[in-house]
Amino acid sequence: MSSIKASKLSSATFDFEQYVLDCKTQIEHSLDLWMKPHEPEILWESMRYSVLSGGKRLRAILCMAAAEACSKDRETARKAVMPCAAAIEIVHAMSLIHDDLPCMDNDDLRRGKPTNHKVFGEALALLAGDALLMLALEILLDRSDASVTPKNVMAVASELTRAAGALGMVGGQVLDLSYTGQGIERTNAFKALDNIAIDEAILGTIHKKKTGAMIRFSAWSGAKLASANEKQLSTISEFGDILGLAFQIADDLLDVTGDVTTLGKTPGKDEASQKATWVRVFGVEKSQSRLEALEKKGLELISAADFNADAVPALAAILNYAIHRKN
Amino acid sequence: MSSIKASKLSSATFDFEQYVLDCKTQIEHSLDLWMKPHEPEILWESMRYSVLSGGKRLRAILCMAAAEACSKDRETARKAVMPCAAAIEIVHAMSLIHDDLPCMDNDDLRRGKPTNHKVFGEALALLAGDALLMLALEILLDRSDASVTPKNVMAVASELTRAAGALGMVGGQVLDLSYTGQGIERTNAFKALDNIAIDEAILGTIHKKKTGAMIRFSAWSGAKLASANEKQLSTISEFGDILGLAFQIADDLLDVTGDVTTLGKTPGKDEASQKATWVRVFGVEKSQSRLEALEKKGLELISAADFNADAVPALAAILNYAIHRKN
Repeated sequence: MSSIKASKLSSATFDFEQYVLDCKTQIEHSLDLWMKPHEPEILWESMRYSVLSGGKRLRAILCMAAAEACSKDRETARKAVMPCAAAIEIVHAMSLIHDDLPCMDNDDLRRGKPTNHKVFGEALALLAGDALLMLALEILLDRSDASVTPKNVMAVASELTRAAGALGMVGGQVLDLSYTGQGIERTNAFKALDNIAIDEAILGTIHKKKTGAMIRFSAWSGAKLASANEKQLSTISEFGDILGLAFQIADDLLDVTGDVTTLGKTPGKDEASQKATWVRVFGVEKSQSRLEALEKKGLELISAADFNADAVPALAAILNYAIHRKN
Repeated sequence: MSSIKASKLSSATFDFEQYVLDCKTQIEHSLDLWMKPHEPEILWESMRYSVLSGGKRLRAILCMAAAEACSKDRETARKAVMPCAAAIEIVHAMSLIHDDLPCMDNDDLRRGKPTNHKVFGEALALLAGDALLMLALEILLDRSDASVTPKNVMAVASELTRAAGALGMVGGQVLDLSYTGQGIERTNAFKALDNIAIDEAILGTIHKKKTGAMIRFSAWSGAKLASANEKQLSTISEFGDILGLAFQIADDLLDVTGDVTTLGKTPGKDEASQKATWVRVFGVEKSQSRLEALEKKGLELISAADFNADAVPALAAILNYAIHRKN
């Protein structure tokens, strides 16, 4: 890395905490605005309970930072991506609601609060998730900023259906279940996988879909909505892949090293349910050195990219946070 | 009704059975083509199991007939609506998968076959439903015929999210659960509704959303994709409303008068679960006379409409079928 390029990564004037706060304020405001309760009230209450429960908003912030990296002006970039950033957080929230259901992970605690079905019952949690999937697409299609071409809105909406669906997030969840020893009702097709050792290739495929697809989409869609060129789109997508993998490895490590107060969810669940995790395949130390390598690669990538230099420190800080976070 | 208008309804050359067969062949072909299995295989197997299990395809056929009614040429109309017709059937199938889950209606039988979760387990049934919702939107956005403007594709996709989501189908399912005495885990908010008598207004609201929204959408979207004018759009939407209500009343009657062999599902479930039904509120006789009034109103509407006369007999036959069917 040349010193000029390295300087792009850590601007003296860049305050990540303030940046995150700014982004979060905008995203929370948009979510609240675009999720005004309607009839039936109990359904909207359930939907709002999970979406507006104060997550990290990492995916939305990544989407915003990616747009800024491919745009000359921060305000224009943010306006262009806000509906997409909201849609991404809504899809993420719905995936957690369905993940937590008794027939899936059967979790009682999420972000330090009772899970959706613990508060609203299983039927409502199921339906709230379905409604949120539709709402995410509705916001993306209907709330688009006038600066974005209909062609780009359609491209992003269509890519979201793939990132969230059978080829992406949902497909990854099924793969993950396929290699999980317990906790779900398993068909013979699943049981046949019991004797297959989980290696790096399998684990990589699971996570590339399960968490990676939506993180890659967050980065790509931000750039796309800021009218990025092909080179910028491929670079930000690669960065999304690196970030997604790093995020997942860090997550697996936290399940081993974290505690319930900091995590806001039950640690040790991966081990108990024999989940396919990086720690299970590589152990703690190798997983940590893998993370370091990913951090180096990600930073090199964005420092060499044709991005708006003002926005690069935010991307670097997001990667740093994904790797070194405590929850 | 003038004799000229009446003649629009029953063309001597119109063969409804053949029409349905033609439409079904096209829709089954498109669904099979657009749902080619990918990894993970077990997920696609579960998705295909429910979508390709030979339903009535009433909604898709309505969508096609509505397009033909607002178009000069049948072939052009069919090409324009096929992705939407497929999306509608996919959304319908996913709603049945989630409806049948133990935390909802807990049904073992659907269209004469074991329900999705009985074959694939609850977790996979849940995820297959989620994936199908995304696939429906993907097909609508990506498979559009070149004859349809991007603006109309976006309008239809956005309307689908509302018809299927919290303001439509899912909202109706929640309302229905709210007034159901058993079979689901109910929160205090639900229990508070136990003493409220279900009247026509409540029942109308439930069904307008639960089944009506997607049937109305089927009619409206067909017309919209055929570039219908405002008058045609409002007429076909009103017809969709009439058809949706008639379909639901007929469904409630079949639950009382039907048998398991003809129905392909368990009759008497509505009564057992104290579902909010038209039969429960009005009794069998009044429900039947209500159906007759709806049939008359629907036929008058389409015979007076500015539609392609060749397509009106199909709309009339669909209404007739919805009311007089045996399953």
